[in-house]
Amino acid sequence: MTEPGPAEAAIGVFDSGLGGLTVAAAIAQTLSSENLVYLGDTARVPYGTRSPATVVRYARKNVSFLRSQRVKLVVVACNTVSAQGLGGLADGSPLPIIGVIRPGARAAVDASQGGSIAVLGTPATVRSNAYVNAIHELAPRRTVHQIPCPLFVPLVEEGWVDHDVTAQVAQEYLAPLAGTEIDTVILGCTHYPLLRGVIERTLLATLGRSVAVVDSASAVAETVRGFLSTAGLERTSSRGERRFFVTDAPDRVGEVGDRFWGDALGEKLSLDHVDIVDFPS
Amino acid sequence: MTEPGPAEAAIGVFDSGLGGLTVAAAIAQTLSSENLVYLGDTARVPYGTRSPATVVRYARKNVSFLRSQRVKLVVVACNTVSAQGLGGLADGSPLPIIGVIRPGARAAVDASQGGSIAVLGTPATVRSNAYVNAIHELAPRRTVHQIPCPLFVPLVEEGWVDHDVTAQVAQEYLAPLAGTEIDTVILGCTHYPLLRGVIERTLLATLGRSVAVVDSASAVAETVRGFLSTAGLERTSSRGERRFFVTDAPDRVGEVGDRFWGDALGEKLSLDHVDIVDFPS
Repeated sequence: MTEPGPAEAAIGVFDSGLGGLTVAAAIAQTLSSENLVYLGDTARVPYGTRSPATVVRYARKNVSFLRSQRVKLVVVACNTVSAQGLGGLADGSPLPIIGVIRPGARAAVDASQGGSIAVLGTPATVRSNAYVNAIHELAPRRTVHQIPCPLFVPLVEEGWVDHDVTAQVAQEYLAPLAGTEIDTVILGCTHYPLLRGVIERTLLATLGRSVAVVDSASAVAETVRGFLSTAGLERTSSRGERRFFVTDAPDRVGEVGDRFWGDALGEKLSLDHVDIVDFPS
Repeated sequence: MTEPGPAEAAIGVFDSGLGGLTVAAAIAQTLSSENLVYLGDTARVPYGTRSPATVVRYARKNVSFLRSQRVKLVVVACNTVSAQGLGGLADGSPLPIIGVIRPGARAAVDASQGGSIAVLGTPATVRSNAYVNAIHELAPRRTVHQIPCPLFVPLVEEGWVDHDVTAQVAQEYLAPLAGTEIDTVILGCTHYPLLRGVIERTLLATLGRSVAVVDSASAVAETVRGFLSTAGLERTSSRGERRFFVTDAPDRVGEVGDRFWGDALGEKLSLDHVDIVDFPS
């Protein structure tokens, strides 16, 4: 019996909840041969309101669990963790860790024609200035507008993605962009791709012209593809195996999960429970 | 030096977050001489989406902490925990535990003229049927309408208590009550007293007549007063001491906390951090 080669190891993806499934789905679409392990820390979601010390403790447990599942890299599909920085998460070992902030910032700078860039995110992501800093590493003097959108996540979880109330909330949140020179908008939260339609319509109405709307999910998938190719770690044989874990009971999260995962891939999601309290943090 | 008498022990109050401060504030107003200790488990909020086993584990840690602060009774100002039942929380010891469901149900039955009763709550509270069961213990054949209102909590936390969007959400949530025989509505979540104005206006518009609106907070305060009086545990001397603890960093929760506490008592809130991970659960 031969030990499976390193390319057989999975891509590990974690998020505080199920929103990161939009990132996992983009990876599965871009890299369909790869094995994938997803962990949603639904017993402790949301992270955005926690202190930095608490967030890093939870994130380390997630990485420890994914490591136990034999992964070749970890994608942090959580803006809060990515925004705090990924140093220290891998606990000194050589496990590569890819966040959502830098790929999203890179995609926005690539899409922009030199105008200013708007970042829509949770209050925690906006407070962190992580997208602003990542954009300024690539385009130092670019003007960046940040818009905190605290009601977008609950509206998506309520399923009101095509609802008048959501349109009205979007209109109020995006109003400060009227009259600005923005040509690109980053959907800086894993839930927001489900609101792409209403956000694009509201931007058109607010600005009177169309702009590029980029989401981190597809940008992350491209970054992962590039990393695996450079490292010679691509799995190329058959369609990869996909496994999904949550830290709280999986029974009532199915519908929301399907919305994030199944809408993209036309697949039903099968979630298993895992207790990670005893993993090192 | 004399050991302080049992009446000197505090009233302990806990909630998953800061919403329970509306309950603590009602107790402080009704029983101003009592010492009060509040614990908000902000590192693990919200409980409503967790499994029953996880919720009971967290709740026991909260009770253990309050017990370490010398309390004479514990008020569970959390609908999710109260809805699951309070048996087992005190770990076999004689500490009295008072939840929010039964006092709220009692207040609604007392306020009603025999019409049916509507319960507004989070999806978790509605799914538990706890208010329905508590009302049926007092009024077995009473019709009860339950309305899940998942966006009310995020709207309160966004501070949109007097906003068009909130009015529109309330209109949509309360529309199923049109044409019913309700004469009483329970605000079945600690956040909802801040929406009393918009809820009352929407009920009037939806029903074309006014109904009684009861909240559990004041009902709980009356229950506590009755218990202390019966047990001879009332503290009657000077104004009581009030202490507030949260399990995550207290720095960013001040504004929301003031909304729940200060609006009622015109006081600023001072929150201390406590780590309860090592308390027994």
